[in-house]
Amino acid sequence: MRMAELSRVSGVPVATIKYYLREGLLPAGHLTPPNQASYDQSHVRRLTLIRALTDVGGMSIATTRAVLSVIDDPDRTVRQKLGATIGSLGDLQAGAGADKTDRADRTGEEHVQAAKTVDDLLERRGWRIERTSPARTAAADVLTRLDRLGQHRAIAALDRYAEAAEVAAETDLDVVTGIEDEDELVETALVGTVLGDALLAALRRLAQEHVSGNRYRTPPR
Amino acid sequence: MRMAELSRVSGVPVATIKYYLREGLLPAGHLTPPNQASYDQSHVRRLTLIRALTDVGGMSIATTRAVLSVIDDPDRTVRQKLGATIGSLGDLQAGAGADKTDRADRTGEEHVQAAKTVDDLLERRGWRIERTSPARTAAADVLTRLDRLGQHRAIAALDRYAEAAEVAAETDLDVVTGIEDEDELVETALVGTVLGDALLAALRRLAQEHVSGNRYRTPPR
Repeated sequence: MRMAELSRVSGVPVATIKYYLREGLLPAGHLTPPNQASYDQSHVRRLTLIRALTDVGGMSIATTRAVLSVIDDPDRTVRQKLGATIGSLGDLQAGAGADKTDRADRTGEEHVQAAKTVDDLLERRGWRIERTSPARTAAADVLTRLDRLGQHRAIAALDRYAEAAEVAAETDLDVVTGIEDEDELVETALVGTVLGDALLAALRRLAQEHVSGNRYRTPPR
Repeated sequence: MRMAELSRVSGVPVATIKYYLREGLLPAGHLTPPNQASYDQSHVRRLTLIRALTDVGGMSIATTRAVLSVIDDPDRTVRQKLGATIGSLGDLQAGAGADKTDRADRTGEEHVQAAKTVDDLLERRGWRIERTSPARTAAADVLTRLDRLGQHRAIAALDRYAEAAEVAAETDLDVVTGIEDEDELVETALVGTVLGDALLAALRRLAQEHVSGNRYRTPPR
């Protein structure tokens, strides 16, 4: 199909498609005579993925490009792709927002303390996590900010948040278990992680409304 | 203190502080003779809050300004502030990323179906949620994208994600329960919701690594 049709089918404006092509998020079309680009279902699917990651997942164009380039790399194994996309995602996402000042902060006393709090949590729960796992740093980053804001009640509730996270993670693993096609597995893990954050955030707000209503609503007579 | 000291104490560069002042995120300093602006601990605290929401929470400057203006409004009750910041946050955040095409999509058949899936979930779990709650739409938005990407396994696991969200929400309510100061209550709820999303995301990645290791690692001999 031509670009106009790709735009109609995907619902993404032509100018935006051209932008994704320039930025390397969307692979070029196949050149057909007389020198026109032609697009297929793989382009439609890629556009749907890009929009989901950026619109709902809130990922920047730079982060999305970095993640997609890993997924597209034929020289990486599935394990590497899973590690590089899912494992590093927190770091890529956090890195997009954090400036040099904040990165430098990670050597400070308060961040060392936060990292210790994470280590203690992992030990209490028996979670075996690689020393270099970016999610360790991401968790410590959040704890540092909570501490600076004096949110000690939230920090004290860390174990219960970890319990909620474990229920989500068990479900995540169930969702990918049994997928044999490697490309499908990597995409499912990526989408599940990024859109899963958005889904959990929305469900948490709904659950807050429910729990809050249960605790504070006047019971019906 | 002068702006140079505010920068040193808060760790935020002077140029960034000036940007927040221009954008209305940070209240102006008190004018002291001879016509110089003076800042105090409330400015340090506000800068810490802005950086936490933008860096770790990934909120845009526009969304942060909208949320802070609600918090600062003396004419709103605590209940209104909680509703407008926490309740609308999903919508404000989603609205920042979604363009007109995506908003129009909400009237489409696939979004109607996703909204029905959310309604059914709420009924199964006995969650009583306002018809106009923005989190309903946010959840349906994510389900629409998952459906478009063919992620039916994730959609089928919705109840278990809701279970994880309920554990988090119970904890959220415990964290704010007993806070009597109204400003502190509103800020705790705001920070807990926004940084809580980031904390849950990091903990979920750690839990994924743990669960994945437990299921696939060769047991030690």
